[in-house]
Amino acid sequence: MIIVMNFKAPKEQITAVENKLVSMGVETNLSKGVARTIIGAVGDVTKIDTKLIEALPGVEQIIRILKPYKIVARESHEQNTIIDINGVLLGGSTVQVIAGPCSVETQEQMDLSAKAVADAGCRLMRGGAFKPRSSPYSFQGVGTEGLSMFHKAASKYNLPIVTELMDVRMLDTFIENDVDVIQIGTRNMQNFDLLKEVGRIHKPVILKRGMSATISEWLMSAEYIAAGGNHNIIFCERGIRSFETAYRNVLDITAIPVLKKETHLPVIVDPSHAGGKAWMVPALSMAAVAAGADGLLIETHPNPPEAWCDADQALSPGELKDLMVPLRGIANVIGRDL
Amino acid sequence: MIIVMNFKAPKEQITAVENKLVSMGVETNLSKGVARTIIGAVGDVTKIDTKLIEALPGVEQIIRILKPYKIVARESHEQNTIIDINGVLLGGSTVQVIAGPCSVETQEQMDLSAKAVADAGCRLMRGGAFKPRSSPYSFQGVGTEGLSMFHKAASKYNLPIVTELMDVRMLDTFIENDVDVIQIGTRNMQNFDLLKEVGRIHKPVILKRGMSATISEWLMSAEYIAAGGNHNIIFCERGIRSFETAYRNVLDITAIPVLKKETHLPVIVDPSHAGGKAWMVPALSMAAVAAGADGLLIETHPNPPEAWCDADQALSPGELKDLMVPLRGIANVIGRDL
Amino acid sequence: MIIVMNFKAPKEQITAVENKLVSMGVETNLSKGVARTIIGAVGDVTKIDTKLIEALPGVEQIIRILKPYKIVARESHEQNTIIDINGVLLGGSTVQVIAGPCSVETQEQMDLSAKAVADAGCRLMRGGAFKPRSSPYSFQGVGTEGLSMFHKAASKYNLPIVTELMDVRMLDTFIENDVDVIQIGTRNMQNFDLLKEVGRIHKPVILKRGMSATISEWLMSAEYIAAGGNHNIIFCERGIRSFETAYRNVLDITAIPVLKKETHLPVIVDPSHAGGKAWMVPALSMAAVAAGADGLLIETHPNPPEAWCDADQALSPGELKDLMVPLRGIANVIGRDL
Amino acid sequence: MIIVMNFKAPKEQITAVENKLVSMGVETNLSKGVARTIIGAVGDVTKIDTKLIEALPGVEQIIRILKPYKIVARESHEQNTIIDINGVLLGGSTVQVIAGPCSVETQEQMDLSAKAVADAGCRLMRGGAFKPRSSPYSFQGVGTEGLSMFHKAASKYNLPIVTELMDVRMLDTFIENDVDVIQIGTRNMQNFDLLKEVGRIHKPVILKRGMSATISEWLMSAEYIAAGGNHNIIFCERGIRSFETAYRNVLDITAIPVLKKETHLPVIVDPSHAGGKAWMVPALSMAAVAAGADGLLIETHPNPPEAWCDADQALSPGELKDLMVPLRGIANVIGRDL
Repeated sequence: MIIVMNFKAPKEQITAVENKLVSMGVETNLSKGVARTIIGAVGDVTKIDTKLIEALPGVEQIIRILKPYKIVARESHEQNTIIDINGVLLGGSTVQVIAGPCSVETQEQMDLSAKAVADAGCRLMRGGAFKPRSSPYSFQGVGTEGLSMFHKAASKYNLPIVTELMDVRMLDTFIENDVDVIQIGTRNMQNFDLLKEVGRIHKPVILKRGMSATISEWLMSAEYIAAGGNHNIIFCERGIRSFETAYRNVLDITAIPVLKKETHLPVIVDPSHAGGKAWMVPALSMAAVAAGADGLLIETHPNPPEAWCDADQALSPGELKDLMVPLRGIANVIGRDL
Repeated sequence: MIIVMNFKAPKEQITAVENKLVSMGVETNLSKGVARTIIGAVGDVTKIDTKLIEALPGVEQIIRILKPYKIVARESHEQNTIIDINGVLLGGSTVQVIAGPCSVETQEQMDLSAKAVADAGCRLMRGGAFKPRSSPYSFQGVGTEGLSMFHKAASKYNLPIVTELMDVRMLDTFIENDVDVIQIGTRNMQNFDLLKEVGRIHKPVILKRGMSATISEWLMSAEYIAAGGNHNIIFCERGIRSFETAYRNVLDITAIPVLKKETHLPVIVDPSHAGGKAWMVPALSMAAVAAGADGLLIETHPNPPEAWCDADQALSPGELKDLMVPLRGIANVIGRDL
Repeated sequence: MIIVMNFKAPKEQITAVENKLVSMGVETNLSKGVARTIIGAVGDVTKIDTKLIEALPGVEQIIRILKPYKIVARESHEQNTIIDINGVLLGGSTVQVIAGPCSVETQEQMDLSAKAVADAGCRLMRGGAFKPRSSPYSFQGVGTEGLSMFHKAASKYNLPIVTELMDVRMLDTFIENDVDVIQIGTRNMQNFDLLKEVGRIHKPVILKRGMSATISEWLMSAEYIAAGGNHNIIFCERGIRSFETAYRNVLDITAIPVLKKETHLPVIVDPSHAGGKAWMVPALSMAAVAAGADGLLIETHPNPPEAWCDADQALSPGELKDLMVPLRGIANVIGRDL
Repeated sequence: MIIVMNFKAPKEQITAVENKLVSMGVETNLSKGVARTIIGAVGDVTKIDTKLIEALPGVEQIIRILKPYKIVARESHEQNTIIDINGVLLGGSTVQVIAGPCSVETQEQMDLSAKAVADAGCRLMRGGAFKPRSSPYSFQGVGTEGLSMFHKAASKYNLPIVTELMDVRMLDTFIENDVDVIQIGTRNMQNFDLLKEVGRIHKPVILKRGMSATISEWLMSAEYIAAGGNHNIIFCERGIRSFETAYRNVLDITAIPVLKKETHLPVIVDPSHAGGKAWMVPALSMAAVAAGADGLLIETHPNPPEAWCDADQALSPGELKDLMVPLRGIANVIGRDL
């Protein structure tokens, strides 16, 4: 950690900062440049709250050299982590496509969805029983009953299931209903109590990026889960908020290579929520696989125009199946399979 | 609601959209322009999920004419709502300054803080017992015990207390500890289960704007609380995320007049989190009052460099007291008091 | 165009708006909904400045149904436009890689660069003689002399040259030096006088997206060029500005399919400026081709660490050559060559 | 300048970086922390292009300690610069309101505008003869003739005139027509050739902030002008681009205190373009003065609904006059006049 002092800071202020750092258990070294004095803090600075130093008189700026995340950092764990989801491996050489409807509606719809997902060659299934909706007047999901409909439909095809947890009080219900992968949605990326709870179990967690979360904040949210003991974390890029109004979000493709460099954990992409329109999904999916994503989270529905939720972004079973062909082709080009 | 059809949409697609709308309980009228056919939907369209229509073949775009929020809209309630917080009125002609430390630390610190807040002439006090921190390794707040320390310190000066609720499971504890105003933080603006819970009680709720929430999304989150029966909602602008790196957030001053136009509920501003530095607080506070804010949420600490959290953004007791003078002057210029 | 009146607007205000529209040469039709009166304007509304209507009393909102761009719109020209750059076709089934150094430095450096570009199998070459630098103290390019060095080096390999024009007064010099493609940089996307000038010639123009330009503004800037008579326009996505600080810009991959839908003109991607680091270029390039880009603009240098400008984002000749292999593989997967 | 080496960087890479820095004329010192080696560069590093160092093998990150701007920095010139515009002082204790229409239309409109501006008590006048419009089909300004109409109208009331220069080739015409203050618009903030040209004259220049320019980039654009010899620069905040769609731009009020700290030059605010609606102008203007702005740039028109451009954001003469009262009141509260 580097502390840049104001160019007018008198000697006493510099000494006070040094003393504070020493009291926090780190060593300091002083460097006087032409225009600024700089204090270097050496030792275990990861847990020092920089804002406490910034409050001292004469401090102009604090620069962290070390990253504030540890367990999730590739620096602490060089090899890629491969997560085993009931036998389906995510994060290895195979790119996994997780497909399914936006929301669980009926048993029949889930049965048809599971069939479509399996027919397309996907090995994992998604679907929401509890839906985060910006309006209180929109459909909020079918609830707990949806979990059992989902489980019943998916198990017929041996598809592990992925579904979103919004409320800490529902975690036990998710466990009882044999949810295989818990999804933390974009609006809950910094719901720290929820992160702590899923850190206490050992099920894989898909952590979606907050709408305007930086890569660093996202890694820190994963660190919350990891710090609790659960290292089965999958990052999911789903588009970020920008000034552009022509599409719902901007898929941040650059996040893929950057995360793969910063963390050993798998990274997947949700092209459905990123673009917000079914016709954009193929281009975004192919781009994601080409950029190195370990998986995709794609919305599909047996009959998109009749979907109860996000109808405009769901692929039909045929569209999903067709998309798998070029996705597999691209995966092969970069030495992976799908 | 207006549905713009693609310029190539054949008649059957137009008819299908009309039929769908009619099945949803609204009337339609057709307008054929030079280049596009447009379908108008007339009736109670507020609860129609536009995405279900957008999924129909031939639909190019849907435009909502009516706002999706109702209870919180000024259109439904012309007069300003004045919220009574144990006798302190917020939203009327008096601008209220809510001051206090970032976090509850010790009984002594809270006693000194309460004294400083009362001495400066403020009538409400803030302080956090549970802190949302981006790092799991940062100080997380002193917890439940902090609520009683806070209550004890503030009651000596008859200051109603404002504190943040992060976890639905803690709501009863907040009620038992006589918290006067519940704050929903920026990271929880779309934690819908939390919004639903505070919608069931009748305590005033300060709803902070999400880091990159639009005005419309923010109003919809308030609508979640209001739909549950609790209409005592206070909006708090606290800076939005932008590309700028010279300060933590960009205080969105325009949100004040826009919200005052769109809703009858009070609007306050948090200048401390917006700028992120104590030296910016006076300028931002004065701007907020000048722009029409009904109140301010300001961080102060008996000894800022020793604060356990956000030390660099807290005003000292003397700075707070000094700031009240020009704030009162500006309030008077625009016909209010403070 | 649709004009939404305020719910309190009296009849006279509605009539005044109708009269204004009629005076502007369009027909109107009135639709009274439950809560709002809506006026539809039918006819050639493209050239109506909506802000003139918004200023009228009682108007709440104006909604444009038709896009404000014409010549560049796919609606006016269904087939893809293929641009012939001295025999190299851009916009057809072949994906073109335009490679070369950030800036022209010396004749030797340009000779080595041209050789590397040709060796890698690229058919077009880039290089800057005039450089837009955020600091007045940074290297500003070698100037006019650089154009002739560039031309000399590239012609040996029959590579048409692409270079940036910043100053309207230099256009003649660019023409005299046989520049094949004129690049308009991101900072000049709305330098309307420059757009008008390149609209008067017939050389192909690469129009880079402004740092925070919407798709619609970008199309309108192209319309400026097209309105002058020059329809040889190539869009170049180069990353947009966001809140993220881990990389220079966010490559907006979604812009590719969206532009291909909105316009008949070619779309290329600059992965070098998007990420800002050489190690990110392969992933971003592959993603761009997978998403449907018609070409790439890649920085390469005979010896990156010695480059005079943007040294950290240039590929070495070997890296460029290696990258062409998977790019070609991905192009083939989606039915193109490269 | 601080160079952070990768934790795996071998000794030779560290030495190579040190040698490169020494060859650039600066001294280095090495600091080995627990996890990283850090190289400090001491000396005149302002002109070093950090990207040339970042390209060296083993370099992880470069951190600039010194600001890259010099002449415009308050560090180099502690006192506020007061700019004398034909006897009207900007940047001192008096807040100046620069008012006038968006565009010059007719002599009569300019005569009425000048009268309104003077009647309201403003001492400077604005108006555009050349207009940057996003559509080539929108009104582009009346051109050179407009400059003489403007001059004639304003001189009757001794109002110095402010008008926008878009094209380097028009600078002589602006000088011949006695333009008092040259405005560089938001779309040209990084039109470096234009900045260099206005750097060669001595007329005051209003430099508007680019739509998504950081404070640092904005200061660097001013440095371009200053480096040419013209130090009469006025910063104008006019709203930045964000994700919010409820208003045109977000007025960045925080930029005012931050700029006042970073530079000795005056800072003004354009509330008309920030909000984009006349009804927002009073709140934003009051906030700007309260936050410490040295002036305002306000659009007014003798008859707003008939304005040829930006009709919805112009104040009427009466509204302008009324607004001056609270603005003066707020200026007085903070010890200034207006």
